[in-house]
Amino acid sequence: MAHPLRIGMIGLGTVGSGVARILQTQAARTALRAGRPVQLTRVAVRNPDRARDVDLTEVQLTTDALSVAQADDVDVVVELIGGIEPAKSLVLAALQAGKDVVTANKALLCTCGDELFAEARRLGRSISFEAAVAGGVPIIAAIGQAMTGNQILSLAAIVNGTSNFILTRMFKENASYEDSVREAQQLGFAEADPSMDVQGTDAAQKLGLLTQLAFGRRITPDQFPVQGIDELSLMDLKFAAELGYAIKLLATAKLVDQQLELHTQPTLIRNSRPLAQVNGPYNMIELTGDALGKAWFSALGAGQMATASAVLADLVDVAVGRARINFNSLPLWPQTETFPLQPIEKIRRRYYMRFQVEDRPHVIADIADILGRHGISLASVIQKESDEPGSQAEFPAVPLVFMTHVTTEGAVRAARAELDQLSTVRLPWLCLPVSD
Amino acid sequence: MAHPLRIGMIGLGTVGSGVARILQTQAARTALRAGRPVQLTRVAVRNPDRARDVDLTEVQLTTDALSVAQADDVDVVVELIGGIEPAKSLVLAALQAGKDVVTANKALLCTCGDELFAEARRLGRSISFEAAVAGGVPIIAAIGQAMTGNQILSLAAIVNGTSNFILTRMFKENASYEDSVREAQQLGFAEADPSMDVQGTDAAQKLGLLTQLAFGRRITPDQFPVQGIDELSLMDLKFAAELGYAIKLLATAKLVDQQLELHTQPTLIRNSRPLAQVNGPYNMIELTGDALGKAWFSALGAGQMATASAVLADLVDVAVGRARINFNSLPLWPQTETFPLQPIEKIRRRYYMRFQVEDRPHVIADIADILGRHGISLASVIQKESDEPGSQAEFPAVPLVFMTHVTTEGAVRAARAELDQLSTVRLPWLCLPVSD
Repeated sequence: MAHPLRIGMIGLGTVGSGVARILQTQAARTALRAGRPVQLTRVAVRNPDRARDVDLTEVQLTTDALSVAQADDVDVVVELIGGIEPAKSLVLAALQAGKDVVTANKALLCTCGDELFAEARRLGRSISFEAAVAGGVPIIAAIGQAMTGNQILSLAAIVNGTSNFILTRMFKENASYEDSVREAQQLGFAEADPSMDVQGTDAAQKLGLLTQLAFGRRITPDQFPVQGIDELSLMDLKFAAELGYAIKLLATAKLVDQQLELHTQPTLIRNSRPLAQVNGPYNMIELTGDALGKAWFSALGAGQMATASAVLADLVDVAVGRARINFNSLPLWPQTETFPLQPIEKIRRRYYMRFQVEDRPHVIADIADILGRHGISLASVIQKESDEPGSQAEFPAVPLVFMTHVTTEGAVRAARAELDQLSTVRLPWLCLPVSD
Repeated sequence: MAHPLRIGMIGLGTVGSGVARILQTQAARTALRAGRPVQLTRVAVRNPDRARDVDLTEVQLTTDALSVAQADDVDVVVELIGGIEPAKSLVLAALQAGKDVVTANKALLCTCGDELFAEARRLGRSISFEAAVAGGVPIIAAIGQAMTGNQILSLAAIVNGTSNFILTRMFKENASYEDSVREAQQLGFAEADPSMDVQGTDAAQKLGLLTQLAFGRRITPDQFPVQGIDELSLMDLKFAAELGYAIKLLATAKLVDQQLELHTQPTLIRNSRPLAQVNGPYNMIELTGDALGKAWFSALGAGQMATASAVLADLVDVAVGRARINFNSLPLWPQTETFPLQPIEKIRRRYYMRFQVEDRPHVIADIADILGRHGISLASVIQKESDEPGSQAEFPAVPLVFMTHVTTEGAVRAARAELDQLSTVRLPWLCLPVSD
């Protein structure tokens, strides 16, 4: 049997402990899959005295992460500390010391991917990052390997498990947004500060990485619409259900007239589509290829063992020599077939608009008139009675929902400017895209 | 750029034409993904005069398949003729002539896989076969690469698109089994003789291949229960729906007490599960890993371009050097961790039983008594009025449906022997497993 693959791990948090546990408890199985033993030789942690549920007797534990990245008895460095620095410096040091790198650090790759990938390429090393997007869903492999016979035409993804958990709980338990966030935090599905997840930033970063892989174009979240689930209320999920849709935080990249349409927004998805059925902390990516047609990939998007499973797959890839081939053939650098971004105003789709309006004459007419003047025609309207019984207000607020026919983002933005001026419309009102 | 990868194709039917079309119309794109040009140099066909919708001016067309398998200007042989012989001899000849092989031939691999894989291994060549199971679903890659950090605990798969199309059409169009088979044939989803598909043989062969990959154990369809959809009636789909289930032809392999439980049967699947939502010609494989948990992979399971997409992925793998690594690391040979087959009688699950009984006193009691004596307890019963209005029979036949609690296949088989003797029960009656 070939010489062992020696692993230096930086960070021994939730995912790192999971990786260590598989390597320890499944050593024979891992060796069989990898064609050689896979040994955890060094681990860098912040606090070496913390109690951990993994056996570290065979491991050199240190607080000096750089020494792990550069150690002679390390072949591959697994970076699991997250964030930009010191992760970036450590990855660069590892590459320069001749190590392959496995990372689950989406923020790092989204921000500094170009530089890191170029350096790895220059040095003939690999960076594997299956765990960085959608946890246990092997989406990097799907795009980089399974779809090579295709031009990918569209990618629609539920890649933020926290948001999906919150939306599922709201709908199934009739719970408020606030209560659902709290429960997600208690169950470990949301962080103490959930803003990266619920404001759409996390999903938008993942969309950036996936877009680079699927369309050969580097993109950052400030270049496309990003909207979070923190604007939603339970009533929106119920109105959507009444109309035959589920609302999911959907990251979308698709080719329209050879331009790239991108957005990460809570989106109404028709109930018959697989994406609408994804509940709880699960992720799903729907890919459309010009040869394959549609394909769906789904699994847990986060969590200790699902993410550890993705890291293990990367480690086996390194062990068998597949990681460098994968890395060298991934479209991580400018391609001949890159596409220009579609101007945001040109994006064409249907919209869901939910207003809280004062329940007095002519309100619907005022709104419909503004929409009509901007060429936005209506497919359906729902008006319910006041949800503020006993309100002391002269005109209690009632929800008013419009579903539009296909229109442009430009028309909606122009209409919005006028709608915001209506004294009968409470601000902010909610506008979500529809994906049929 | 590296030297071109030269392809010899044997068979230019539906899938072969699709592969040729992608290679011709997407030459630049394919070269980019493959790191070098991919050229179709030779094609063997049965009838060279047949009109085809691909341009063959740059290709050497021949009826001599062996000459393609052995040609000096061929690096990889794509076998797309199906069946055992002459496919087997041609694949062996290609391997012995130093070629890598790509095949979509599930029957060949299921029957002679051991011999072919061993020969390829001996010669240092690769056999790639992503297109052989579940068409466009990259399930070989999922098991061989994404799941390497896991012991796969179970695999539940809808892998026969023909059966799934027929079942979907029956349910959605209120159509009979016979009419749905005819429509499937007219639309090209079923062959003139659909028996391989509707009797479960095709799905069972695919399960054999997947089981070898997922559990390291070689198995043939005569070793586990195989049941087709040709026993079903529309009323079974409706009864199942009434109970909250969909019926799908499900190929299952799972570890139970370190033994392997295998079967390919029409199965009641609870509507909330993703497998229950797979409609028309789509395939889905649900994998459960001890680290990852559940994952789902879905796409078209057959058809020209979906299958061609899988063949192209294999060709790119050959071009970039990934095919040999994949082949050498696939668990295609006996593993240290193989599992014994669970005896069929020991399989534990719930059952759906649908009888056509004569509508006279004591029928339900007679059946329930036999089931009870075999320790089979009932979860629910549906009895409907006669579906033969105006029947001249003294006792018209009415459907009677039982859902059992968990029991063993052994108990069901023992009860069946007695139930078959009841004069009030029409033969054959239907018994399907339930997957909750």
